[in-house]
Amino acid sequence: MTMYTPPIEDMQFLLFDVFDVERDWQRAGLDIDRMMVTGLLDECGKLATNVMAPLSQSSDKEGAHWDQGTVTAPTGFSGAFAEIQSGGWIGMCGNPDFGGQGMPRVLGTCVDEMFWAANSNLWLYGSLTSGATYCIDAHATEELKETYLPSMYEGRWTGAMALTEPHAGTDLGLLRTKAKKQLDGSYKLNGTKIFITSGEHDLADNIIHLVLARVEGAPAGTRGISLFLVPKFLPDDDSSLTIRNGFRSASIEHKMGIRGSATSVINYEDAVGYLVGSENSGLRHMFTMMNFARLSVGVQGLGLSAKAYQLASTYTKERVQGRAPSGPKQPDDSADAIIEHPDVRRMLLTQRAFVEGGRALSVLVSSYLDKSIFATDESEQQQNFRLVELLTPLAKAFMSDRGLEVASLAQQCFGGAGYIQETGIEQVVRDVRITQIYEGTNGIQALDFIGRKVLMDGAQTLRDFIQELLSFDMSDPFKEKVSCALSDLVELTDWLLEHAATNPDLSGSVSVEFLDYCGYITYAALWARMAATDDSRFQKSLIANFYFDKILPRTGSLRQSIMAGSESVMKPESDWF
Amino acid sequence: MTMYTPPIEDMQFLLFDVFDVERDWQRAGLDIDRMMVTGLLDECGKLATNVMAPLSQSSDKEGAHWDQGTVTAPTGFSGAFAEIQSGGWIGMCGNPDFGGQGMPRVLGTCVDEMFWAANSNLWLYGSLTSGATYCIDAHATEELKETYLPSMYEGRWTGAMALTEPHAGTDLGLLRTKAKKQLDGSYKLNGTKIFITSGEHDLADNIIHLVLARVEGAPAGTRGISLFLVPKFLPDDDSSLTIRNGFRSASIEHKMGIRGSATSVINYEDAVGYLVGSENSGLRHMFTMMNFARLSVGVQGLGLSAKAYQLASTYTKERVQGRAPSGPKQPDDSADAIIEHPDVRRMLLTQRAFVEGGRALSVLVSSYLDKSIFATDESEQQQNFRLVELLTPLAKAFMSDRGLEVASLAQQCFGGAGYIQETGIEQVVRDVRITQIYEGTNGIQALDFIGRKVLMDGAQTLRDFIQELLSFDMSDPFKEKVSCALSDLVELTDWLLEHAATNPDLSGSVSVEFLDYCGYITYAALWARMAATDDSRFQKSLIANFYFDKILPRTGSLRQSIMAGSESVMKPESDWF
Repeated sequence: MTMYTPPIEDMQFLLFDVFDVERDWQRAGLDIDRMMVTGLLDECGKLATNVMAPLSQSSDKEGAHWDQGTVTAPTGFSGAFAEIQSGGWIGMCGNPDFGGQGMPRVLGTCVDEMFWAANSNLWLYGSLTSGATYCIDAHATEELKETYLPSMYEGRWTGAMALTEPHAGTDLGLLRTKAKKQLDGSYKLNGTKIFITSGEHDLADNIIHLVLARVEGAPAGTRGISLFLVPKFLPDDDSSLTIRNGFRSASIEHKMGIRGSATSVINYEDAVGYLVGSENSGLRHMFTMMNFARLSVGVQGLGLSAKAYQLASTYTKERVQGRAPSGPKQPDDSADAIIEHPDVRRMLLTQRAFVEGGRALSVLVSSYLDKSIFATDESEQQQNFRLVELLTPLAKAFMSDRGLEVASLAQQCFGGAGYIQETGIEQVVRDVRITQIYEGTNGIQALDFIGRKVLMDGAQTLRDFIQELLSFDMSDPFKEKVSCALSDLVELTDWLLEHAATNPDLSGSVSVEFLDYCGYITYAALWARMAATDDSRFQKSLIANFYFDKILPRTGSLRQSIMAGSESVMKPESDWF
Repeated sequence: MTMYTPPIEDMQFLLFDVFDVERDWQRAGLDIDRMMVTGLLDECGKLATNVMAPLSQSSDKEGAHWDQGTVTAPTGFSGAFAEIQSGGWIGMCGNPDFGGQGMPRVLGTCVDEMFWAANSNLWLYGSLTSGATYCIDAHATEELKETYLPSMYEGRWTGAMALTEPHAGTDLGLLRTKAKKQLDGSYKLNGTKIFITSGEHDLADNIIHLVLARVEGAPAGTRGISLFLVPKFLPDDDSSLTIRNGFRSASIEHKMGIRGSATSVINYEDAVGYLVGSENSGLRHMFTMMNFARLSVGVQGLGLSAKAYQLASTYTKERVQGRAPSGPKQPDDSADAIIEHPDVRRMLLTQRAFVEGGRALSVLVSSYLDKSIFATDESEQQQNFRLVELLTPLAKAFMSDRGLEVASLAQQCFGGAGYIQETGIEQVVRDVRITQIYEGTNGIQALDFIGRKVLMDGAQTLRDFIQELLSFDMSDPFKEKVSCALSDLVELTDWLLEHAATNPDLSGSVSVEFLDYCGYITYAALWARMAATDDSRFQKSLIANFYFDKILPRTGSLRQSIMAGSESVMKPESDWF
């Protein structure tokens, strides 16, 4: 059984000491104080540790079950999910007009991290519900909101996102699922969707699909896609759930990891759906959900890597092998703990630099998100929303890529034991691998980042973000290094703007490296700020030193690789490969 | 079913065009020509493709079976292994005096790559036999050689390596298995070993363990370890196998990957063993086996990554999504194949650069190994042996680390489908992960490389290797870049020699980065040489261009990280982690 210790002190440090979100809350007139937050995080931590974490390994081993269209979650999930429901965790950031608790998203992110870390397999049954509610709240009719949001906030009804079709994944313009308008204003949907996380399961009374489909006669491509709310059961007038809607799980996938989470193929056959927003604007509306989901997937990468580090640091303090190169540290034992070996420390410090750097980024992005919602000034809202849009693909891709790196390093700390299922660490590696793939592969995130978020507005938003980073409270030598790195970034961005204008292949050839480049520099600024904030209690400067010495240098290679351009990438003919 | 295409043309290109091993063979008086090699590689390729590869996915799904000490390999392995035996593949590089075929190791390496690629799960039952025979051939008595080598070369008897104990993995000095000398000169062994690949199974008539144990009264630590040959069945005077020796498989491990390979816990209870070499020299003797196994594990990383690239390049040519940024490439289709997207090409080229670079390294190291055996001049033998010793940890670690990188990039090319077991690519990722761990973790390889292989002789062997690389036939601009990189390496090595003398923590703090640094530069030289050799048939310069543009820059970051030294690594107290 892999244990999990919630990082509550570190979250408090970030929320209150580093980013002072309390000040934002006060300005926004939110009635939340530090003590309330402490209580909330403690409760969440207890649920994660005592209820969710103990089911993680067993759920991986058992997997989800499919039988004639009925999907059953692994043993124990039903009881644990009931506790997530009754704790009110799913609606905590929801709209109070419909039963949500209206809490800041930054707290939702902290909860998200703990739940992902404790048991990603289980939290996948609940997590998408929040995204679905944000989308419904933003775009659906009052009637749909009244009918669906309260039960979804309670978690009695869960959400699912149905986008992908067998021939249409990244390229949603190709999708074929059809919607035909009925006399009563509803639609009937027909088609097949794949990779539908929690599209069918036994943990909720109802499952609300948000489905992308093409209305009869709609234009081809992405301009002809509409979004529909398609419930498993159609609530009748007295809200009872007796009418089963026309979709079924045709099968569930056998996956590398998150094996306790049921990923369905869903067949829609004359399924009743309700339009969300306007016809042919489905893709835009779906992004409200997807942007939330993308940040959440980054946080999943973070949560799982935090758990991986915990497992590795515990193991390396217990396992004894060999002697420290500078002489025995435990002379009375037959050998020293392997944490005394420099290379093991290198691995642990790398993990920790990414875990705590990622946590800082997730809090920063969520605080911008809160300001985009709660700020009293509209231009401040918009400015923060632009930052969120810029940072969403960065957070998703960089935190999940580092998530695999951390998990794999943690596994390496275990030696041979790391490859054995019993230890638990190999499951973390398998589970975290999905975060680089779903909600848009990290390659797609990088294209979104460099193309739509950086180059499209002439890098104005990126420049604004750079100003934000420069305004961080930092001290030398880190401050100096961060401003050098940011000057380099400005210069490189100018180079990109200039050359991408005439070379259509450039941005796609360097997109992943550019996202990484920005990610490493952002973490550097966050480490400098954490080191400057720390009152020596956490000794954050120990990690900051390591980060600037050993990790930030990666930017040099990335820069060189980016400036080598697209020629060597594009030269080979496709059939040469 | 994941298919596999043997890279026979590329192997021929390396053997004959790039490295001209035929010249070495002629000088050594070996009676092997190009046509014979072509026949051999073709036969091997057919076995790999038609017999081994089709069982890879099913064996992963089924796993190996354990029942009351009896271990059964997955369905189909018995028939496939019989073909490996009858093909004579296991004894192909064995000593002809005892029934081996005396073929050059460089051909053994090519066979090894194909077998690992086609089905690592299956080949793990045979592969360690070669290592065991090299060790027996080098160190055992004539009587043991006569009794064991012929049947092992035939593959009727297979080999296993029993080193690790629950509390003694990397630190073999801690091992406790005891050996007590008997009146007849044999020994009785008692103890428990773990992680014993193919220590028990049903594919061979006999299983020959090479076991490290401590003779009664031996000194503590690594100086008191002896090596024993411990057969599952003791051959009696007429060579029949009726007497079962005293060891049993207590269980097999449940692992992240290579699940069709049985990894046993073995209990030795009064097991009869025969001393190999002299008492208390066991560790040294074992290295004869382990060095072979280390190179072979690097080749496993290579083989699996070659298979991963094949899967990814096939998929990316078939899967259509979106349009190339420079305009439609398949205007008549609904979308372009994803291979038209620059980022997909970046991923494929990275994979290919590492696969073919790794293949070149494996052939180079094996050709040194052959010269260390077959060269007529003893000093030439010794010089080549030193190069093999230098490059063994580099090849093991660098090729397996790149193996995971390649497999994970290949998985990423599949998008969501890459996470589904059916596609086959996720199994490659799980299977290849072990290569970074077993036969000494890559962290241990890096310590061996920087410490025993580079710094210990004042970097003389490394300098010799650098001279070898400089003597490669290369053309500009690659030639110029390689010599710059090698000058940087010389300078960095001097810096290391100077500072490691006074700082015991330095080499361990930078060992992994230093190994990587040397690995990337070595591949650069190999790419320059391949590009210079190619007659435009393979267009190797397409990959060389990419390698120098996009991969070699990684050395800059590594150099900076190395020169940041050990301070930030060593500063935190152990209990701070």
